Amino acid sequence: MRTGIAAIIGGGVIGGGWAARFALMGWDVRVLDPDPEAERKIAEVLANARRSLPGLADAALPPEGGIHYSTDAAVAVSGADWIQESVPERLGLKRDVYRTLQEHSGDAIIASSTSGFKPSELQEGAVRPGQILVAHPFNPVYLLPVVELVGTSANPPETLARADAILKDIGMHPLHLEHEIDAHIADRLMEAVWREALWLVNDGVATTEEIDDVMRLGFGLRWAQMGLFETFRIAGGEQGMRHFLHQFGPALKWPWTKLMDVPDLTEDLIETIAGQSDAQSGMHAIRDLERHRDTNLVALMRALKSQDWGAGAVLNTTDAVLRKRNGMVQRFDQITDLTRPILTLDRTVPLDWTDYNGHMNEAKYLQAFCDATDRFMEIVGCDADYIATGGSYFTAETHIRHLDEIHAGHRVRVETICMNGQGRKMHLVHQLWEGDRLCATGEHFLVHVSLDTRRPSDPSATIARQIAAIEEGHRNLPRPEGLGRYVGQPR
Amino acid sequence: MRTGIAAIIGGGVIGGGWAARFALMGWDVRVLDPDPEAERKIAEVLANARRSLPGLADAALPPEGGIHYSTDAAVAVSGADWIQESVPERLGLKRDVYRTLQEHSGDAIIASSTSGFKPSELQEGAVRPGQILVAHPFNPVYLLPVVELVGTSANPPETLARADAILKDIGMHPLHLEHEIDAHIADRLMEAVWREALWLVNDGVATTEEIDDVMRLGFGLRWAQMGLFETFRIAGGEQGMRHFLHQFGPALKWPWTKLMDVPDLTEDLIETIAGQSDAQSGMHAIRDLERHRDTNLVALMRALKSQDWGAGAVLNTTDAVLRKRNGMVQRFDQITDLTRPILTLDRTVPLDWTDYNGHMNEAKYLQAFCDATDRFMEIVGCDADYIATGGSYFTAETHIRHLDEIHAGHRVRVETICMNGQGRKMHLVHQLWEGDRLCATGEHFLVHVSLDTRRPSDPSATIARQIAAIEEGHRNLPRPEGLGRYVGQPR
Repeated sequence: MRTGIAAIIGGGVIGGGWAARFALMGWDVRVLDPDPEAERKIAEVLANARRSLPGLADAALPPEGGIHYSTDAAVAVSGADWIQESVPERLGLKRDVYRTLQEHSGDAIIASSTSGFKPSELQEGAVRPGQILVAHPFNPVYLLPVVELVGTSANPPETLARADAILKDIGMHPLHLEHEIDAHIADRLMEAVWREALWLVNDGVATTEEIDDVMRLGFGLRWAQMGLFETFRIAGGEQGMRHFLHQFGPALKWPWTKLMDVPDLTEDLIETIAGQSDAQSGMHAIRDLERHRDTNLVALMRALKSQDWGAGAVLNTTDAVLRKRNGMVQRFDQITDLTRPILTLDRTVPLDWTDYNGHMNEAKYLQAFCDATDRFMEIVGCDADYIATGGSYFTAETHIRHLDEIHAGHRVRVETICMNGQGRKMHLVHQLWEGDRLCATGEHFLVHVSLDTRRPSDPSATIARQIAAIEEGHRNLPRPEGLGRYVGQPR
Repeated sequence: MRTGIAAIIGGGVIGGGWAARFALMGWDVRVLDPDPEAERKIAEVLANARRSLPGLADAALPPEGGIHYSTDAAVAVSGADWIQESVPERLGLKRDVYRTLQEHSGDAIIASSTSGFKPSELQEGAVRPGQILVAHPFNPVYLLPVVELVGTSANPPETLARADAILKDIGMHPLHLEHEIDAHIADRLMEAVWREALWLVNDGVATTEEIDDVMRLGFGLRWAQMGLFETFRIAGGEQGMRHFLHQFGPALKWPWTKLMDVPDLTEDLIETIAGQSDAQSGMHAIRDLERHRDTNLVALMRALKSQDWGAGAVLNTTDAVLRKRNGMVQRFDQITDLTRPILTLDRTVPLDWTDYNGHMNEAKYLQAFCDATDRFMEIVGCDADYIATGGSYFTAETHIRHLDEIHAGHRVRVETICMNGQGRKMHLVHQLWEGDRLCATGEHFLVHVSLDTRRPSDPSATIARQIAAIEEGHRNLPRPEGLGRYVGQPR
């Protein structure tokens, strides 16, 4: 993984995204843009990138490179290893820009972010056409890994190989197109959807929100992990892609879209597609692909749950209904017997909670206990509304005994005992059960804090009273096993 | 949330998916299918659904309903609240099926899974047309929430409202289309992509894998959370959707796709789209939308990392390069000073590790320590290859002191001391630092196990020797603060 100097020509959203990715991956960046607002605009993109990209990695990124702004092409490109052009989509303008760049640039790669032009069009009339190619990224450039890399026969293979290596160095996945074509691949697919969507809105059939919902709550979640062909391969079932094409091919002739020029599904084309699909996905049996798809969907949708967004928001709505239906206590006044431990979690272990040991990962034990603590806090009155007023509990200390294994699909529950709820303190013991099997205990010490000062503070009178009542009710419960234990203490 | 009786007419992948969703949400299911293989096929779909759906919820699902197979329509539909027809896409066949169903069905909703036919076509010639509507789902039906709900003026509003409520009861998101149209909404959009993709393969421009990659590593990740219009709204920037349409509208006229019948972007159409987009997304400022998009992308891609799939696999490759570049010790023989704590984690806290208190969630402290333990295991020789031979370490006990807050974007590191590595034991102390701020300590007791017997077993001689050497080297380090502490122990 090398770093170097990247010159960013044109500092809009795309140029800014490139600048951010290069800089955060340790490259020195020089921005060339006559717009006096360029620095402000790129700073905004950079702020978004600094917020999101570094934590995406499970390893530290290199020290951030510097960003320098210039209106002088010679200063911007001199000594650059990579020059990324993202000026407006006008061919004449781009060619003028290349002329200037090539006066100052040495043998740097000159890559265009163009979404529409072919590299041969960009190279035409250039002093050194072999230096120019297309590297078409996707917004936000600092997060999405794919980039369409397109050259022509004028580009030496070494140049394309060098471009490929540099893009990988900044964490991208170059998709090397063998043949140039207007708009490359992705924008053609997007345009197809865009046009059909415009018809649907134009004809009053659907609103923009309905179209977005059908994508993000439906097929978009499949495309985000498998794309189009691998998804359809599954639809073909055990008989595979050839079967799918024979079965669903005729639908192409139906008058469904306004877009009616369709290739003939000849036996040759069927063989081509089926063969490519075999090469791409044939290492997975269909049943395995189905399970990968489902595990991915669970992981994706649960990720969106934590953001309460899209499919995740739909699932959260259902969860709230399920909790009510299950008769779980949600508020203090629903507790019927204060002398019993409180049921604070009742769920099935999801597929994305397991690890390489084939069981629930240790960190998810604390996730379960953390969810149980959240529920207990809600019950005593420390719910989202209360937290919005500026009070909450922070966990100070945790002790977990992992007593037995748990697997995905196991239904588990947590029963909670309050050992102490005096003043600012909350001392809880969670027991994690699968059926009559005690799988873990969690002992947790929390402190009520002010979210303004981040210092300990008194809870509301209601919370204090309700916790005290539960502590009082739990006083005569048998002392929970493992209480007050330290790590490694003999049993 | 009610449960009831669902009759599933036709038991293929779609019918099976419906059967699985209804049964897992507590409904009694009756399957009507003349295919002698129906029970086996549905059992396979059910197995996939039982594996994935229950854990998707953060609450327990109702007790699973029964599934009964029949070849007698009267038995299958008598007393049913919902009848889902998923027979092959032949209009005559479907109409024949409805005739039979209506002889036995009472006022149950009869919903068709058809992807192509309009409800008016299905209703034609029926005894009670108002009973029949379209509920078009997406495979896998048991996971994906969206369903296109389409009726006609023949359906009483009460029927559509009842259908809507029942679909929500089984965790779905009904998208109620106001106007019927061939293929509804989603399949028209999918067909548009499918046709364009066929051209690209047919013309030798791209392979199936390249097309899938450009989707799943690029725009598919945007569509999975925001769909098409909300994504483009962001592209319009602060000037919004009208600006986007004026700016990018002309591209529609370019000869990019084989699919050239395009609606005119009249001022009327621009107003319609921009107005709908305002109603859909206007509550979020563009900067907020960008941050939601980025947080969602981080959460989605990190979810795929844990599966080492798609965009997640690309990120994992980059992580491995970064770790090497950062000079982190990866193998025992790279340790230069055995008397120093070992750096086992060095990363930036990602956006999806924070919670409602505006800081890193308590469970992620254990995630960080768990990741650090994984790294320590690798260093002493318990890596993926070793685990594949059937040995590993299980955590038995954990003690965490949460000493200070950590926020998204903080760069944190874990330094690890081995207290004991004798025999089957591994006793580690992790210290989590942000700069010179000690934010947490973790004390962990692990046991080497056989993954076959799931019982304690001896580690390999190499692992034993390497752990012992680190323990020996760490013997003279100052006793880590917090060691042997129990929860609530006075400082």
